[in-house]
Amino acid sequence: MTKLNWGMIGGGKGSQIGPAHRMGAQADGNFVMAAGALDVDAERGRAFADTLGIASDRAYANWQDMLEGERTREDRVDLVTVATPNATHFEITKAFLEAGFNVLCEKPMTMTVEEGEEIVRVAEASGKICAVNYCYSAYPMVREMRHMVATGQIGKVRTIVANFSHGHHGDAGDADNPRVRWRYDPAMAGVSGQFADCGIHALHMASFIAGDEVRTLSADFASTISSRELEDDAMVNFRMEGGTVGRLWTSSVAIGRQHGFDIQVFGETGGLRWASEQPNQVFYTPVGGRTQIMEKGEGGLSDEAQRLSRVAIAHPEGFPLAVANIYVDLAAKIRGEAHGDFPVAADGLRSMAAVHQAVASAKADGAWVDARPPMFR
Amino acid sequence: MTKLNWGMIGGGKGSQIGPAHRMGAQADGNFVMAAGALDVDAERGRAFADTLGIASDRAYANWQDMLEGERTREDRVDLVTVATPNATHFEITKAFLEAGFNVLCEKPMTMTVEEGEEIVRVAEASGKICAVNYCYSAYPMVREMRHMVATGQIGKVRTIVANFSHGHHGDAGDADNPRVRWRYDPAMAGVSGQFADCGIHALHMASFIAGDEVRTLSADFASTISSRELEDDAMVNFRMEGGTVGRLWTSSVAIGRQHGFDIQVFGETGGLRWASEQPNQVFYTPVGGRTQIMEKGEGGLSDEAQRLSRVAIAHPEGFPLAVANIYVDLAAKIRGEAHGDFPVAADGLRSMAAVHQAVASAKADGAWVDARPPMFR
Amino acid sequence: MTKLNWGMIGGGKGSQIGPAHRMGAQADGNFVMAAGALDVDAERGRAFADTLGIASDRAYANWQDMLEGERTREDRVDLVTVATPNATHFEITKAFLEAGFNVLCEKPMTMTVEEGEEIVRVAEASGKICAVNYCYSAYPMVREMRHMVATGQIGKVRTIVANFSHGHHGDAGDADNPRVRWRYDPAMAGVSGQFADCGIHALHMASFIAGDEVRTLSADFASTISSRELEDDAMVNFRMEGGTVGRLWTSSVAIGRQHGFDIQVFGETGGLRWASEQPNQVFYTPVGGRTQIMEKGEGGLSDEAQRLSRVAIAHPEGFPLAVANIYVDLAAKIRGEAHGDFPVAADGLRSMAAVHQAVASAKADGAWVDARPPMFR
Amino acid sequence: MTKLNWGMIGGGKGSQIGPAHRMGAQADGNFVMAAGALDVDAERGRAFADTLGIASDRAYANWQDMLEGERTREDRVDLVTVATPNATHFEITKAFLEAGFNVLCEKPMTMTVEEGEEIVRVAEASGKICAVNYCYSAYPMVREMRHMVATGQIGKVRTIVANFSHGHHGDAGDADNPRVRWRYDPAMAGVSGQFADCGIHALHMASFIAGDEVRTLSADFASTISSRELEDDAMVNFRMEGGTVGRLWTSSVAIGRQHGFDIQVFGETGGLRWASEQPNQVFYTPVGGRTQIMEKGEGGLSDEAQRLSRVAIAHPEGFPLAVANIYVDLAAKIRGEAHGDFPVAADGLRSMAAVHQAVASAKADGAWVDARPPMFR
Repeated sequence: MTKLNWGMIGGGKGSQIGPAHRMGAQADGNFVMAAGALDVDAERGRAFADTLGIASDRAYANWQDMLEGERTREDRVDLVTVATPNATHFEITKAFLEAGFNVLCEKPMTMTVEEGEEIVRVAEASGKICAVNYCYSAYPMVREMRHMVATGQIGKVRTIVANFSHGHHGDAGDADNPRVRWRYDPAMAGVSGQFADCGIHALHMASFIAGDEVRTLSADFASTISSRELEDDAMVNFRMEGGTVGRLWTSSVAIGRQHGFDIQVFGETGGLRWASEQPNQVFYTPVGGRTQIMEKGEGGLSDEAQRLSRVAIAHPEGFPLAVANIYVDLAAKIRGEAHGDFPVAADGLRSMAAVHQAVASAKADGAWVDARPPMFR
Repeated sequence: MTKLNWGMIGGGKGSQIGPAHRMGAQADGNFVMAAGALDVDAERGRAFADTLGIASDRAYANWQDMLEGERTREDRVDLVTVATPNATHFEITKAFLEAGFNVLCEKPMTMTVEEGEEIVRVAEASGKICAVNYCYSAYPMVREMRHMVATGQIGKVRTIVANFSHGHHGDAGDADNPRVRWRYDPAMAGVSGQFADCGIHALHMASFIAGDEVRTLSADFASTISSRELEDDAMVNFRMEGGTVGRLWTSSVAIGRQHGFDIQVFGETGGLRWASEQPNQVFYTPVGGRTQIMEKGEGGLSDEAQRLSRVAIAHPEGFPLAVANIYVDLAAKIRGEAHGDFPVAADGLRSMAAVHQAVASAKADGAWVDARPPMFR
Repeated sequence: MTKLNWGMIGGGKGSQIGPAHRMGAQADGNFVMAAGALDVDAERGRAFADTLGIASDRAYANWQDMLEGERTREDRVDLVTVATPNATHFEITKAFLEAGFNVLCEKPMTMTVEEGEEIVRVAEASGKICAVNYCYSAYPMVREMRHMVATGQIGKVRTIVANFSHGHHGDAGDADNPRVRWRYDPAMAGVSGQFADCGIHALHMASFIAGDEVRTLSADFASTISSRELEDDAMVNFRMEGGTVGRLWTSSVAIGRQHGFDIQVFGETGGLRWASEQPNQVFYTPVGGRTQIMEKGEGGLSDEAQRLSRVAIAHPEGFPLAVANIYVDLAAKIRGEAHGDFPVAADGLRSMAAVHQAVASAKADGAWVDARPPMFR
Repeated sequence: MTKLNWGMIGGGKGSQIGPAHRMGAQADGNFVMAAGALDVDAERGRAFADTLGIASDRAYANWQDMLEGERTREDRVDLVTVATPNATHFEITKAFLEAGFNVLCEKPMTMTVEEGEEIVRVAEASGKICAVNYCYSAYPMVREMRHMVATGQIGKVRTIVANFSHGHHGDAGDADNPRVRWRYDPAMAGVSGQFADCGIHALHMASFIAGDEVRTLSADFASTISSRELEDDAMVNFRMEGGTVGRLWTSSVAIGRQHGFDIQVFGETGGLRWASEQPNQVFYTPVGGRTQIMEKGEGGLSDEAQRLSRVAIAHPEGFPLAVANIYVDLAAKIRGEAHGDFPVAADGLRSMAAVHQAVASAKADGAWVDARPPMFR
C-alpha cells in the first residue's frame, strides 16, 4: 500500500501540539511527512524541517508558498494539518480547501461564527475533508462510551457532567508571562479564555458521547486573577436537543489539577465515568449494580474500540495515540476504505457558536441563550 | 469526670442516622444514653430504648412527654438530639431550647427561613446550645483544611468546587418507593429535593473551610425523572462575601457515585482536595509544586486536627467518628472546658435561606439572588 | 437490655491502642467501662480512669488488685481487655481466665509457643472466652470475602498475597528512639520484630479469609538498619493445608507506605483485593470478567457483612469500628445470643508458632518448616 | 537529517508486540520501515509488508534471505529488530551481529546462559549494537527514578519490592488454548514459565533503577493449575551486590490484575513507587515527609526524563512510546550523537542467568544460589 503524503503548517520546534501530530501521522506508517511550513521564522522552519526528513524543496517559508508549491505537484500532500496560531486557522484552512486539499485543522477552527459557517460551506463545496482535531474523542474507551450510549446500554441520557480544569495558569506572578498572558488577551485569544481553550473540548465530548447536540446554555465566567480580561474559570450549564442536562466546569487556576479533563454520563439505566489522565479505563455502573472497571482491549468491546486499541489490555496508550487515531481514520477516508470517523467542520462551527454564546450569556448574568450557530437553528 | 446525660428524639430502629448519633455520643464515653422518644410508634420506641439500656421511665412515648419528664429531673439530660422527620425539627428544637435544654438538631434545622430566624433568636435568648449536625465539618482533615485557609497557606481563596452526588435515586422504577418518593414531594420535603438533602452539606462545607459566607447564588434545577416535582439534579453557582467563586453540583441520579461528596478549594498559592469516601487524606498542591498527600494523624497538623484524630496515622476513621467529634466539642462546651467548635443555629439558618433562594433563582431561569437570610443582610 | 460491665488492663493515657478499645467497647452501648488498671504508674492510671468515668473503687493500681477486687463483686466485669506490654499478656490472661473472667487479649497472646499452648488449655478448662484482637478480621468487607470463599464464589483458592508494610521505622536517625527501638530488641520484643508486630496480622487474615490454616513456611528476614538485632523487613512464603500458595511481605522501612496492609486472594474462578486504608471496598473479579467494586452496605451482601455495617453505603467506617465489631460479637456471646465470631486462643497460638517457625526458617536460610504448633500437628 | 532504514524479523499480522515496534520505530520519524521478514508464512509476511509500505524486493521470505538481501545493499538497514518466537532469538541475533548489523532483540535474548554469553562475546567482537527490549526501563518516570537513586535522593537503597502479575492465564478451562499453553510447556518456553515471561522484566527494572546487579536469589515456584509443567506463580527473594534486599512476585493467575507491574524502591532517606498502568506518575516520599506525586513533564525533572517526554504534563504517554524511547536512543547511538541509553546483551545475559538460577533454587526448596552468569562472577 502506498504511503500518503502529509504536510503541516505550524507545529515548529518547541510547539506543544506539533509532536503529537507528527507522532499521530507517522506512528502507523500511513503518512510520510513530505512537506511543511513549520515556523513563522522561515529559516527556523526550514532547519527544523530538515531534521524531520522533509526534502528541502518542500520545506516552505510560509503557508502561501506551500499552497503554491504543492498545488501543482503530482505527489502533492494528501493531507495538510493546520497547527498555526488560532487567529490564522480560518484563512489557511479556507485557502487549502479551496485549492482542493484535505485539511485537518487544530481547534479552534475559526475565531468567529461567521467564519465557521463559511468553512462549512467551503468544505462542502470543495468535496474535501475538513477535519477538526477534537482528538480526545478518538480514545478507544471514549468510542466505547459513545457506542454504549448509542446502543442503549445506559438508557436515555439524563445528565452529563464534564470538567476540564488545570492549575497551570494559577500563579498570578506568572500572569505576565507571554506564554500564559495571550490566553486572556482578547487581541490574541478572541472572546474567551479558558472556555475556548479547554472547556470546548469537554463540550464537544459531551455531544460526541451522547450523540446529541447542545441547544441552549447559561454561563458564569470569572477572572479570578484580576489582571485578566478574559475568564480563567467558567461554569456552563446546558441542555441538549434530546433534553439531557449538562454541567461543565473549566478552570486554569485549579492548582493541583494537572490535566483534569473528565466526563460522567448518567442515563436511565447506568452511568459512565472517564478521565483523560487514565484514558484506558471506563467506570461503568448499571443501575442497582456494582461499578465495573472496563479496560481498553478487553474482550467484548465494540469494533471501533478494538480497532483503535493497538497494544494488549492494560498496556497504557496515551494522548499521542489518540491523535494517531484521528489520522488512522483520515487515512482510511482518503483511501476510500471507510467513511472516516472524525470531527468535521460542522463540529468546529458548533464549538465556535457555543463559545460566543457562552460569552454572551456570561455578560447577561447567565441568561439562557441558544447555543447553536444560525446555520443550524 | 461525671458522664453527661444524653437523650434522643427520633432515630428509632431502622433509622439511617440514629446509629451514627448513638455511636457519636457514646464512643468517647462522654455521654450516657439516658432518655429517648425514639419512634412515632410509642411502643416500638420503648422496646428499642430498652435494647439500648435506657431506663423504662425515661423511654418516652413522644417528645412532649420527654420534655415534661426531663424538665424537672435533677439528672435531666444535658443534651437532646433531634433526629425526627424534617418538618418537626423546628417545633421540637424551639420547645427544648425554651425549656432550657441544649440541643443538637439534625439538618435541616427548619423548613422556612422565618422559622430559622426564630430559632436563632430563641437560641440566643435561651443561652443554651443550639447545634446543627453538619457533621462532615468535624472530620479532622476538614478541620485541617479550614486551618490551612485561615492561616494563609493557600492564599486568598479564588474558587471552590463542591460536589455531593449519588445515584441511589436513579432508578425510575423505584421512584414510587416511599423511602425515595418523599424527597421529591413538596408536601414532605419542602421547597427543594436533592439540593436541600445533600447539596446543602456541600454549601456549608464551602463556608466552613473558606471561613466566609455565601452572598449571592444562581441555580439550575432539573427533575431528570419527570414524575418528580422537586429537583433531583442541581447546579448552583455562588459568590462569597470575600469574592470567592463557587460551583456546586449535586445529584441523586448520578448512577455509580455512591457518596460523592468532595470539595476542591483553590487559592492564590495552593489548592486542596478532599473526598468524603477517603476522608483521612487531603491532597494539597502548592502553586508551582507537587501534589502532597496529607494524612490524618501525621506530624505537624494543626491542634484541632490532631485533637479529633483518635487512632494512628492511616488507620482509617469514618463517618460515625466525624459525628462523634461534634459530640466531643458539645461535651467540652457543656462542661465549660472549651468554647465549642460546631455548627450552630446561624449556620442552619443560612442553609435554609440558601435553599429557598436557590429555588427562587432556579424558577427565575438562574437569576442571581441574595443567598443570605434577611436577618444577616 | 442490661449493659455489660467492661474493664481494661493497660491502655492508659497516650496508649496507641487504648482509644480503639474504649470506642470499640462503648460505641454500640453494649459495655460500660466499669473497671480498669490502666497504667503501670498507679496514680496516673487512677487519674485517667477518673476522666473515663470509672468509679474510684474500681480504678485499680495494678492487674493483681483488679483481679482480687473484681473477683468477688456481684457486678464483676463481664469482660476484661488486656492491652499491656506484650510480655505480660500471658500471665494476665491466664490469671483472669483461671479466675473465671472472659478475656480479650491484645496480640501477641503470648511470647512463646509453650505459653500459647497453655492458654489454649486454660481457656478450654475455664469454659470462658479467650479472644485475641485480630481486629482487621472484623471489618464487614473482610467478613464478606470470607463468606465469598466459603460459598465457593471464587472457587478453590490458589494463591494469597498479603502485605503489611509501613515506613514509620525507616529513619535510621530515629532508631534509638525508645518508642521504636524496643520493637527490634529481643529483650523486649521476643524473637521477631516486624513479622511479629505486623506480618502476623496478615498471616491471620490469610487463614481467616481462606478458612484454612498455614501448614509450612519459608522465611527471609533482613535488618535493613544494621543496628537492629531483629528484622525490619521480612518475606514469608507459605503453603496452607489445602495447598494454597501464600506470599507475605512485611516491612517497617517501606517509606511512603502508611498502613500498607492489603490482601489479594486468587481462586479458580475469581480474585479479591482489599486494602486496610480503604476498608469499605473489595475489588472482585470473576475469571474472564471485569473487576467489580463491592461496597460495604450494598444490597446483596452476606448477613455477617450487613450486620457489622453501621451506616449507609459509602459512608466510611474505619478501624475503631472494626474493633467495635469484635466487641459486638463478644457481647452477643456473653449474652448467649450468638456463638461469637472472633479470633480465639487457638488463633493466638497458631500465630505464635508461625512467628517462631519463621524465625527458625530465616536462620536456616529459608528452609521450609512446619508452621503449626505441636499441639495441632 | 537522513532517516535511518529499519527492518523487522517477525512481528507479523496479529503479533502482539509487532505494532509496538512499528510505532516505536516510526513515531519520531527517525526510522523508515525499509525491510522485513515478517511471518513464518512467507506469503503472508509479504502481503503484510506491502500494507506497511515495504518495497516488494525487501519483503523477504525468511530471515536468512533478509540477511543475504540486505548485507550487500548500500542502503542496508541500519537496525534490525528481532521479534520472532523466543527459541529463534539467539540464532538470528548472532547471525545479524556477525554480518555487521545493529540488532534490537526482543526478550528473552537467548534460551540458555551459554548462548547468552556467546551473544555478549559476538556483540563485543562485532562492535555493533546488540540491544534487548526491556522497554519499561525507557519510560520517562522510570528514568527519573534511576536518576534519583543515582544522585542519592533516597539514600542507599535498602529494599526493592517488584511485582509483575496478571490473571490472563487464570482460567483452567483455557489452559489448553495454544496461545496460553506454550508458556508452560518446556519444549517451547524453556525452563521457566511466568518468571521468564514477566518476572524477568521486574528483575531487570530493579537492577536498572538501583544501578546495581542481583548477586544471589532464592525462589519459590508453583504451578497452581496442575496441568502446567512450568510455574504460573513465583516468588523470588534476592540480594544485590550492594546489599539491597529484593522481593519479586510474579503470577499469571492473579485474576483481576491486568498488567500488574509495579515497583517500590525504599532507601535510607526516601521511597519511590511506580506502576506500569499509570506510568506517568511516581510517588515519592522523603523520610518523615509527605508523599509527593511526581508527574512526567513537570518542571525540575532530570534531563533524561524530560528528553523522553513528548507531550505536556499529565497528557498520558503509554507503552508504545516507551518502546519508541528505546528507538530514540538507538537512533542517537547509530548516528553517533549520543552514547545510547538502552539495555544491551549483558542485561539479556544476566536475565537469562537469573531465570536458570531461579529454576535451580526452586527445585532445591528455595536454596540461595548465585544469580550471576559465570562470565560475570
